Amino acid sequence: MVDPILTSISEKLINAEDIVLLPHINVDGDALGASLALGLALKAMNKSVDVLIDEEVPDNLSFLPGQELIKDNPRKEYSVAVNIDNGDIVRLGNREHYYHEAKTRLSIDHHNTNKVEADYSYVDTKAAATGEIIYDLIINYLKEDIDKDIAICLYTAIITDTGGFRYTNTTPHTLEVSAELLKYDIDFSYINKRVFDMVSYTKLYLMKKTMNSLRLIEDGKLALSYLTYDDIKGYTVKSDDYEGLVNIGRNLQDVEVSLFLREESPGTFRGNLRSNNYVDVSEIAHSFGGGGHKRAAGFNITGKLEEVIDKLTAEVVAKIRGKA
Amino acid sequence: MVDPILTSISEKLINAEDIVLLPHINVDGDALGASLALGLALKAMNKSVDVLIDEEVPDNLSFLPGQELIKDNPRKEYSVAVNIDNGDIVRLGNREHYYHEAKTRLSIDHHNTNKVEADYSYVDTKAAATGEIIYDLIINYLKEDIDKDIAICLYTAIITDTGGFRYTNTTPHTLEVSAELLKYDIDFSYINKRVFDMVSYTKLYLMKKTMNSLRLIEDGKLALSYLTYDDIKGYTVKSDDYEGLVNIGRNLQDVEVSLFLREESPGTFRGNLRSNNYVDVSEIAHSFGGGGHKRAAGFNITGKLEEVIDKLTAEVVAKIRGKA
Repeated sequence: MVDPILTSISEKLINAEDIVLLPHINVDGDALGASLALGLALKAMNKSVDVLIDEEVPDNLSFLPGQELIKDNPRKEYSVAVNIDNGDIVRLGNREHYYHEAKTRLSIDHHNTNKVEADYSYVDTKAAATGEIIYDLIINYLKEDIDKDIAICLYTAIITDTGGFRYTNTTPHTLEVSAELLKYDIDFSYINKRVFDMVSYTKLYLMKKTMNSLRLIEDGKLALSYLTYDDIKGYTVKSDDYEGLVNIGRNLQDVEVSLFLREESPGTFRGNLRSNNYVDVSEIAHSFGGGGHKRAAGFNITGKLEEVIDKLTAEVVAKIRGKA
Repeated sequence: MVDPILTSISEKLINAEDIVLLPHINVDGDALGASLALGLALKAMNKSVDVLIDEEVPDNLSFLPGQELIKDNPRKEYSVAVNIDNGDIVRLGNREHYYHEAKTRLSIDHHNTNKVEADYSYVDTKAAATGEIIYDLIINYLKEDIDKDIAICLYTAIITDTGGFRYTNTTPHTLEVSAELLKYDIDFSYINKRVFDMVSYTKLYLMKKTMNSLRLIEDGKLALSYLTYDDIKGYTVKSDDYEGLVNIGRNLQDVEVSLFLREESPGTFRGNLRSNNYVDVSEIAHSFGGGGHKRAAGFNITGKLEEVIDKLTAEVVAKIRGKA
């Protein structure tokens, strides 16, 4: 099945003089992997192609090939700009003007919230990663060969956005594409280690503090853990560093609800809720002015730590008892 | 390509009156998933089939379908016995006699150490999991349909033995088979959570103690962590519970070597070594009478904790400096 928009996008790329590839800010494995893969394919077609990003390449992606395409001193303008893995043009940050000033604006993405305007915009919300679309574009539309470097970039893109093929966005096609990528003799075991396993000093410290704070309530069905302002202050904590801390409680045997609190400033808390099987935590978050889904929700709350804990615990325990 | 041994195995199964399926002791996701999948397929062919195991179904596999095939009161004898995912017949434990007494003994495995005698023995060391072989056997030799329950069992088998498609034994074929299994609308995200994420109270306690003990040495290139006998005594610790503790240090940023010690009895330590890039830890383990590979090795050592730490640290630091 030939897609008319991907056909147009590939024609524009094939006829382009110079191309700039623009992944979203706070670049991740899909945005950067997809951009470098497309960049390497276009380079092999003798195109002049630059990849621009707003920050340093993250440590856990420093192994990606094709980084010679990332330019510190870009041109003033490019004739063709490609927005990659980005649903909102303001998320190009300092590079937004390159997109607006280009003669031809192309956009390739998989976010269902995408609202980017382009001459040709391809949004496939069924693709688990933008890297999956780029694979299709290179092979079936640009008619270029994949090589080992491109395969590394695309594999990284796909595992990043599927959590290593674990998230529900993973499809049979995701695994089929990945099977093809494995044929290029890539060291996928190392790539997984780099993308998923590396832990910063700060993250280890936060994990330790979170584990040490853990309390089991209601016969171990509720796991409560927290980081106080005193725990955090003096540390340079990125928002990423908090990710997954709520799962320390959630993954513990017999736990139904995990509640994780962090005191962002004295007396002001961000609450995260996760459940495993039967409690709808969005209802709890809602009653504190927050929101979310059945199994994952969040809210803000103010007060003293132990008061906040008492109030929240009562609410969660009531829900657990109501459903038991 | 039709394999003559798998053809013979399928003929024996198709003509069997009653069949017993025997996975290895300390049953895991591959052994049990492969056995239940084959059992369900044979059941659909109206065969009398029992699966026997030596222990309870592990908690993290309690979701597996087909458990009605697991019998507490087995027959005295079976005419056809199948050894599954097991390289050494003594690892059938209390069920070994069923294998020896059967009229027909079949064996299906993927371990390169396999030494099981059988009327027909199929060992495919390229298969990442025995589940991968069972998929092939059901579809191409027994000519039976896969259903959702069988797909759940086989997917569980495959992710167990590949660490979620991350170990180097994963092949393009592994991903292709898994792509097919995803088409049966299985809740693979839930399966991954059950197989990999669930942590016991004991495990969390050991993780916490290990993290709290962590010391960084030689500019953070060596991560040392340990559990003392005092930490462990009074806890019921399974050998599984120690698994992965050495990776807490290994996964930390900038670490090259992780050394994890546990005091098995007062003054007697088991040492585990992991490296990330350039230190051959088998050399270190060897010098203390142990062994292993470049990136993973182990040894035993006796002494007082701080003396043992000093001795080992000196050795590891010398290796790091030698390679730097």
